Amino acid sequence: MSNTMTPYKHTVQYYETDRMGITHHSNYIRWMEEARIDFFDRLGWSYKKLEDEGIISPVIAVECSYKHSTTFPDDVFITITVLEFRGVCWKLGYTMTDSAGTVVCKATSEHCFLDKDGKIVRIRKVYPGFGEVLTKMMQEE
Amino acid sequence: MSNTMTPYKHTVQYYETDRMGITHHSNYIRWMEEARIDFFDRLGWSYKKLEDEGIISPVIAVECSYKHSTTFPDDVFITITVLEFRGVCWKLGYTMTDSAGTVVCKATSEHCFLDKDGKIVRIRKVYPGFGEVLTKMMQEE
Amino acid sequence: MSNTMTPYKHTVQYYETDRMGITHHSNYIRWMEEARIDFFDRLGWSYKKLEDEGIISPVIAVECSYKHSTTFPDDVFITITVLEFRGVCWKLGYTMTDSAGTVVCKATSEHCFLDKDGKIVRIRKVYPGFGEVLTKMMQEE
Amino acid sequence: MSNTMTPYKHTVQYYETDRMGITHHSNYIRWMEEARIDFFDRLGWSYKKLEDEGIISPVIAVECSYKHSTTFPDDVFITITVLEFRGVCWKLGYTMTDSAGTVVCKATSEHCFLDKDGKIVRIRKVYPGFGEVLTKMMQEE
Repeated sequence: MSNTMTPYKHTVQYYETDRMGITHHSNYIRWMEEARIDFFDRLGWSYKKLEDEGIISPVIAVECSYKHSTTFPDDVFITITVLEFRGVCWKLGYTMTDSAGTVVCKATSEHCFLDKDGKIVRIRKVYPGFGEVLTKMMQEE
Repeated sequence: MSNTMTPYKHTVQYYETDRMGITHHSNYIRWMEEARIDFFDRLGWSYKKLEDEGIISPVIAVECSYKHSTTFPDDVFITITVLEFRGVCWKLGYTMTDSAGTVVCKATSEHCFLDKDGKIVRIRKVYPGFGEVLTKMMQEE
Repeated sequence: MSNTMTPYKHTVQYYETDRMGITHHSNYIRWMEEARIDFFDRLGWSYKKLEDEGIISPVIAVECSYKHSTTFPDDVFITITVLEFRGVCWKLGYTMTDSAGTVVCKATSEHCFLDKDGKIVRIRKVYPGFGEVLTKMMQEE
Repeated sequence: MSNTMTPYKHTVQYYETDRMGITHHSNYIRWMEEARIDFFDRLGWSYKKLEDEGIISPVIAVECSYKHSTTFPDDVFITITVLEFRGVCWKLGYTMTDSAGTVVCKATSEHCFLDKDGKIVRIRKVYPGFGEVLTKMMQEE
């Protein structure tokens, strides 16, 4: 399913570079969020809608491996896969490539859903449709 | 009164530079916020406390004139003055200097207080002590 | 000429919001840069190309007036006009609207071109074509 | 050796929060850089000096595990340890605590030194004193 999605595209901004002349490494963490939000939007589960319903989705952990530097004004293409989903938390994988197809960054992020009181929300129970989509995508990897 | 306050100090971080080799200009706007929060803290009116009481203080306008570039790991010293205060909104002035005393940036910002419903809060009425301090500081300029 | 250009579009990112629930005001300064770079690209004078030729374009001053708050995931549309150009420095105007056409921000920025030694570059002399375009756009305002 | 160093302190800025009301997770990656630069400064090997000598130190990988959220205006205390050093690359560990001593974040970063041509610099050869310090700190963990 993820394979049929076109990658999310981010154009490196001037303000994302540092004095080494390359993209500052902290920005890849932000692009992961951009791509993740776009990913959920396209699956029909927008962050905005979830937040309106009182659900937030903090990041529990990130890992990021920088393979090649990028810089302004490179285009970076981000593909997301569902690595793990066990009903409560899930783990996503990110592969970022440049215009030539070279992998510039490999990353993962872990998440769960919390309600307004900070209690963990069981996705499969509260959003069975969403749980089904995540399960299906994980199995297809 | 402002003259007796020691300037707020910000050390330029590596991640605040861009590929021109200098501090990205958007960061000065952030340092103004840092210095402003510190300024109000020292006057005894902390942002945190105001927010806890349901008051927010959005920025209405900023002006920023860049005189000399800075870069990692320069120290920048920020002095704040109260330029205007008429009971509701107020305007602050910022002078930023480097370690040698050279002015690197001159800026202003305009603000008012809003309650949770977005209605303007009359400082002199709700926080008479704070209003008094702002009035006094403005007159001393 | 600017009137025939479609506005530059920026979608507010989650990481651009702050705990007031709205876009942090410093980000508009960054969007101005995004829109400006896009503007020059479309005029045929890319920042990247200019930098490759040893020309940099630091920001001399910005002014930004915040009219209405925005937040994730709003779309913001930025239209640029050339306010001033006198052969060396130039001033741009920015009008930012939301999807409903409401003006959320009005801003200006001032710039000049410098060579690698920090000396001012006379655009009309070094890039006569670029100077001509800027002059023409200014007259049309 | 690291145990005798006082932790690096970062005060969470307003602009580092997001609309969840907490510090945006990307900022911890930036604080790691702040703490790392401070760490090397205190060891007598400043980034600035290394850069002036033509050495840069890109980040190869980061891992970050978020234990407890923080927000404006919390103080975060960062302790660094040398996890690995084998002459070329090295890996640092970061433990971030709040004022109450609660661990809010555990992280690692991997680095090597490159010269201006992008070639790996052997620290032990080029900066034997620095290599010695890193080796000693690693053994003490």
